[in-house]
Amino acid sequence: MILHILVNLNQPCGFPPVSNRLLIPADRLRDSLASALAASGACPTSVEAAVRALMHASRLGVDSHGARLVMHYDRVLRSGRVNGQPQIRVKHTGTSTAVVDGDDGLGHHVAYAAMTEAIAIARETGVGAVGAIRSSHYGAAGAYALAAAEAGMIGFATTNADSVVAPFDGAKSFHGTNPLAFAAPSGDEKPWLLDMATSSIPMNRVLLYRTLGTTLPEGVAAAAGGTVTRDAAAAEMLLPLGGSDFGFKGAALAGVATVLSAVLQGTALDHDMIPMIGGDMSSPRNMGHFFLAIDPARFGGREVFAAGMAAYLAALRAVPGRDGAEILAPGDREWRVEAERLRDGIPIDLTTAEFLGLSAYSAGEPEAPRR
Amino acid sequence: MILHILVNLNQPCGFPPVSNRLLIPADRLRDSLASALAASGACPTSVEAAVRALMHASRLGVDSHGARLVMHYDRVLRSGRVNGQPQIRVKHTGTSTAVVDGDDGLGHHVAYAAMTEAIAIARETGVGAVGAIRSSHYGAAGAYALAAAEAGMIGFATTNADSVVAPFDGAKSFHGTNPLAFAAPSGDEKPWLLDMATSSIPMNRVLLYRTLGTTLPEGVAAAAGGTVTRDAAAAEMLLPLGGSDFGFKGAALAGVATVLSAVLQGTALDHDMIPMIGGDMSSPRNMGHFFLAIDPARFGGREVFAAGMAAYLAALRAVPGRDGAEILAPGDREWRVEAERLRDGIPIDLTTAEFLGLSAYSAGEPEAPRR
Repeated sequence: MILHILVNLNQPCGFPPVSNRLLIPADRLRDSLASALAASGACPTSVEAAVRALMHASRLGVDSHGARLVMHYDRVLRSGRVNGQPQIRVKHTGTSTAVVDGDDGLGHHVAYAAMTEAIAIARETGVGAVGAIRSSHYGAAGAYALAAAEAGMIGFATTNADSVVAPFDGAKSFHGTNPLAFAAPSGDEKPWLLDMATSSIPMNRVLLYRTLGTTLPEGVAAAAGGTVTRDAAAAEMLLPLGGSDFGFKGAALAGVATVLSAVLQGTALDHDMIPMIGGDMSSPRNMGHFFLAIDPARFGGREVFAAGMAAYLAALRAVPGRDGAEILAPGDREWRVEAERLRDGIPIDLTTAEFLGLSAYSAGEPEAPRR
Repeated sequence: MILHILVNLNQPCGFPPVSNRLLIPADRLRDSLASALAASGACPTSVEAAVRALMHASRLGVDSHGARLVMHYDRVLRSGRVNGQPQIRVKHTGTSTAVVDGDDGLGHHVAYAAMTEAIAIARETGVGAVGAIRSSHYGAAGAYALAAAEAGMIGFATTNADSVVAPFDGAKSFHGTNPLAFAAPSGDEKPWLLDMATSSIPMNRVLLYRTLGTTLPEGVAAAAGGTVTRDAAAAEMLLPLGGSDFGFKGAALAGVATVLSAVLQGTALDHDMIPMIGGDMSSPRNMGHFFLAIDPARFGGREVFAAGMAAYLAALRAVPGRDGAEILAPGDREWRVEAERLRDGIPIDLTTAEFLGLSAYSAGEPEAPRR
């Protein structure tokens, strides 16, 4: 069962870059994505939100959730699964809580609306907790946690997803790769940013190993029947973070995503959810999400928080590394990738480039970036 | 550097039970703990809170954080590190936030006060976020998450702790074992309960392996200089959850605990914190914690949540196991241990039993439990 066919080439996994990619300037890519999604039938606000989230992922190197997903969104906007013209409603359910009804729109639109509400509530009351219902795939969870950090808040975003990860000791997939994303403002620096799947690796990484014919790391995937395997060709499901010995922790963290995103909202559970890819591509998936914003001003105070983040991150980065390794804080790698890509262009595979009308880009357009 | 000298004998680690333990009825143990802590100088409310948290851990099999810690608390109450007569103050900092000043009291007293406040706020506004400052070691984080679940809320509790875990690729310890604890009411069943260190194993597990002369699991500990080792005698620090390949995730989760518990509160960072054991035993440690309560009534509703938890947990437990393994939900193992221990008695090591005046217990007191 292969649910994710998009290969993430840019996460740190020890493989050389693939040559058949074009480097597209960020502005040009953004405009092309916007044009494509408008042509797919998305309203201007949905286009703006989806492009913001896709560009977040593409800039920071999370290519599995970046520009190449535009073809998927085009498909589901046209098939009826996703409503390009949603009437998104915010229902205030308590002084510090709200539920956003996404009207089956693009998940990015729903998610930014929900986190915007969480931030506004947190500014008033110190903390805002917002659920989303009737949503769809929202891309990288980190985009929404980051939105909170950019507004001066500690942000948390999570979602459940369709089954591809076995429970601890399980012989069949149950949870999705269920991300947990946290972000916090860090004074003058780029925000502290964590966006992690609760499996060790994503399914698309398995597919990359399969393509390259190399052996998987220990304890990350299982074959039919749940047998742990390092053979990428045999892998049918992922194992939770922690592997064969400690995967009960990763499985429980996947459950945190499910409890907050689906059980709390009354939306589709992972194992009941229509798969992202394969099967019914035209019915809405009724995905739920959960967002939290916390205002540092209501605890130690904004200045104490900024000084504390600076001291914490400086101390972390100053820890001596094993065999001379550099110690990175969450987000450090992503912000470096962003700087490189804003300078050199964003790598896009040929299929996506063709879909976006950018396939002639390397042939010498005036604004073509350095290769 | 050995920070935790108390060996957890009852977590699932494949070792046979150790014979030199007494089985004490829960009520008797509770009364003995209360008497001991009162004699150590703790006020009645501090005694009640500490006994509740210690009994939570001892009942559920988290023995590293159970009754045997009473000797540690006795020592720090007498040495002046911990204030037995704290004036605990709740400062409301926003409609949905508060900060609890623990006045250097026992962490359990501070933590229950903070979670009680978070629950009360959540009942009014939908979500409550409460920080704690000037606190001390609070035992098992799960005790406080569970308090929220018992009040009908989704609960989250975390704390940072003194350095014993290397960062990813690090050659020196930096974070504490920084737990993340979540709990949620589950209808008629015992609450869903997750209480996990963000390292793969606790330091006391390493010490158990050392005592038994057995080899550590892969990727859980490192020797001096950060070299990953399976030699328990050589281990000087732990590795974050995820091990040599994916420990960047566990390290980032440890950071979530530090950011919420210390940076947000302006309290001691892990690497600056006075160690729990060893060194200065008489100065307050200025520990911070963080607590969150979320009311399901403000999202899908209490009935939807209860039905959703029942459906989710039933589906999880029904997943076929690898090689016939039983699939457990978070908390299932702990609630079974509790049932066994309420029936058979709670295992206490001889040193703790002697401290509590229970060492003659197995010699045939009238109420002695079945062995």
